[in-house]
Amino acid sequence: MGLIVQKFGGTSVKDKERVFNAARTITAAYESGTDIVVAVSAQGKTTDELIEKAAQINPKPSKREMDVLLSAGEQISSALLAIAIEQLGFPVVSLTGWQAGFVTRSNHGAARIKRIETARIKNELDKRNIVIVAGFQGINRFGDITTFGRGGSDTTAVALAAALKAKSCQIYTDVDGVYTADPRIVKNARKLDEITFDEMLELAALGAQVLHNRSVEMAKKYNITLEVVSSLESKPGTKVKEVVSMEKMLIRGAAKDDNVVRLSLIGLPDMPGIAFKIFSLLAGKHINVDIILQSVGRDGTKDISFTVPVDQKDIAVEALKEALPSLGAQTIDIDDNVCKVSIVGAGMQSNPGVAARMFEALYDENINIKMISTSEIKISVLIEAKDGTAALNAVHDAFIN
Amino acid sequence: MGLIVQKFGGTSVKDKERVFNAARTITAAYESGTDIVVAVSAQGKTTDELIEKAAQINPKPSKREMDVLLSAGEQISSALLAIAIEQLGFPVVSLTGWQAGFVTRSNHGAARIKRIETARIKNELDKRNIVIVAGFQGINRFGDITTFGRGGSDTTAVALAAALKAKSCQIYTDVDGVYTADPRIVKNARKLDEITFDEMLELAALGAQVLHNRSVEMAKKYNITLEVVSSLESKPGTKVKEVVSMEKMLIRGAAKDDNVVRLSLIGLPDMPGIAFKIFSLLAGKHINVDIILQSVGRDGTKDISFTVPVDQKDIAVEALKEALPSLGAQTIDIDDNVCKVSIVGAGMQSNPGVAARMFEALYDENINIKMISTSEIKISVLIEAKDGTAALNAVHDAFIN
Repeated sequence: MGLIVQKFGGTSVKDKERVFNAARTITAAYESGTDIVVAVSAQGKTTDELIEKAAQINPKPSKREMDVLLSAGEQISSALLAIAIEQLGFPVVSLTGWQAGFVTRSNHGAARIKRIETARIKNELDKRNIVIVAGFQGINRFGDITTFGRGGSDTTAVALAAALKAKSCQIYTDVDGVYTADPRIVKNARKLDEITFDEMLELAALGAQVLHNRSVEMAKKYNITLEVVSSLESKPGTKVKEVVSMEKMLIRGAAKDDNVVRLSLIGLPDMPGIAFKIFSLLAGKHINVDIILQSVGRDGTKDISFTVPVDQKDIAVEALKEALPSLGAQTIDIDDNVCKVSIVGAGMQSNPGVAARMFEALYDENINIKMISTSEIKISVLIEAKDGTAALNAVHDAFIN
Repeated sequence: MGLIVQKFGGTSVKDKERVFNAARTITAAYESGTDIVVAVSAQGKTTDELIEKAAQINPKPSKREMDVLLSAGEQISSALLAIAIEQLGFPVVSLTGWQAGFVTRSNHGAARIKRIETARIKNELDKRNIVIVAGFQGINRFGDITTFGRGGSDTTAVALAAALKAKSCQIYTDVDGVYTADPRIVKNARKLDEITFDEMLELAALGAQVLHNRSVEMAKKYNITLEVVSSLESKPGTKVKEVVSMEKMLIRGAAKDDNVVRLSLIGLPDMPGIAFKIFSLLAGKHINVDIILQSVGRDGTKDISFTVPVDQKDIAVEALKEALPSLGAQTIDIDDNVCKVSIVGAGMQSNPGVAARMFEALYDENINIKMISTSEIKISVLIEAKDGTAALNAVHDAFIN
């Protein structure tokens, strides 16, 4: 009858009622005769609370110890979910990351999965047990606990689906699917029946927090169809897959990202190698640079602007300030007061005029564009933060209705 | 310079301040040049809260899943303690039970330690790391997490001291030593400088909740001197060891135990084998029977009374009711309204008249004795619960002043 992997996020197991909701979803699938492996996140705000507890003791705890600390959250939720399934009268076993065979690289806090040693899970499935796996964690070759970083339980689920050749990977969450835009901001937002991996990747990177990016990359790599479904009501969600059926929509979605700061290096010498120096410096500090804009050289100098996530601003600014003399730059300009609005859709590749229509929609709202970035399936603009909501609605409604 | 094992209980790491207190005690010892291995309990009420959370989901969760759940508590506190030690600038690593090499028998909830595979700990000590071990847990041969039952972190500490041949095992707690009686009940209670393992075992079994009994048994077996010390103030505590220096005291301590119920089987046939049947039946249910009293046979019948812990009452009564016909008993009588008061001391072996002096003290207070039990170093009486505090004070002051 095959095997299904299900994943329940933190809000889907946040309290006793939600734990039983999840348990009923799991046991209903089990009763239909399929093998079930479940990945589960820590309950509700547990991870945040543990981070806060550590921060009060030590503002810069080691990543190794943070992994020991945080992985306990998923261990707790996996046991509670198993205990609920026992209460419903079904055979179940919970496994921590190391018990489930997740072997990762050695870097703590954002470890990549090397392999899953599936013997234990397969053994439990042979005994007809429902298997609950604590998400977001594994062990490295030193036998230390590692975690996959935020949203890592999605990655756990997809990796399990790939390793166990599951026929389906269902991501249960507190939304009922992937929308063309955040329904809390855009009133005309529509739920999508299907979306491609690439489109989902772009949307996820833009702040549509439905799926963790690494999990979508992995699903794409192993061609595992993901289903994003509501843990609260029983209705079809959104399928994330390689190829989607033809739809009229050019654009699959629009998104706004407030987690962005613009940094500008002013008065750089207009000579080769400067951009390389800057971005290799930032890469060395593991800073994710997004939109990059280089001014045309004038009077022998030029400016380079780029965006970084808010939480990486301080590290970036510190690194750049130190390097100012060696870069030959005059000053750094910092603009916190911005946001990024983007449209995503494979359809735009073959449709000229998409960018023009987007810019027109913004112009109609009298919104000034500070920076532009385009890819084959995405157009992003950096605008003032105060214009974000109006811009997102305008752009969304220009393409989707 | 040798190695010291330290153990910090739940109250000694219950909040940020206490965690730093513990961290400073640990690093002070480390700075003196010794190797340090620490066993730590879950913070404050964590274990109770996790038990309550599980109970709300399932009144009878499996012991396997409870072990997964509860062991997370010690994992969290071990990481937080390590994070505090990092903040103080010392090299440290936390290890879960399985990482620390605790291999146990397979029974969940009260697993016995089979061995400690010390390679990992020794490796960390060779690197001059302070090693924090999550208490109360190990893994069994199936690779499943097991726990040692309540107070199991004491057992972790003593087992570590034995396996690593520690020169000392210090139990840090919220009291400053072992007293001749509970100071909250007996105003004349005195702190002991030393006590033997056997005396400590009797006191612990009687409800002096300073040390977990299994840990004292293990310390006795491996002849490891335990020091019970305050985690709050720096002063000498109590040493628990094989032989103590001569003291004038006949009696090492007095204790009251409210966790006791008297069951009586009435009208048993007065023939051989009945007691064997009853107590093998109870042993099969893992019920700890304490004081046993058998009436003199009369009219061909006799009564057998005995005490059991409060939380085992229901199981015991259920098992006995089922067996009533086969035992040939008429009825079971249950008395919840009792407590046990005891005196303990190796000195009483060679001193006749100790029992008489105890009974006289109770008689002076007009307290009726329901049952009596004696051993070489202990005399216990069962009395009405309401008389407990008066009895304890009277008995204590009759011997210790």
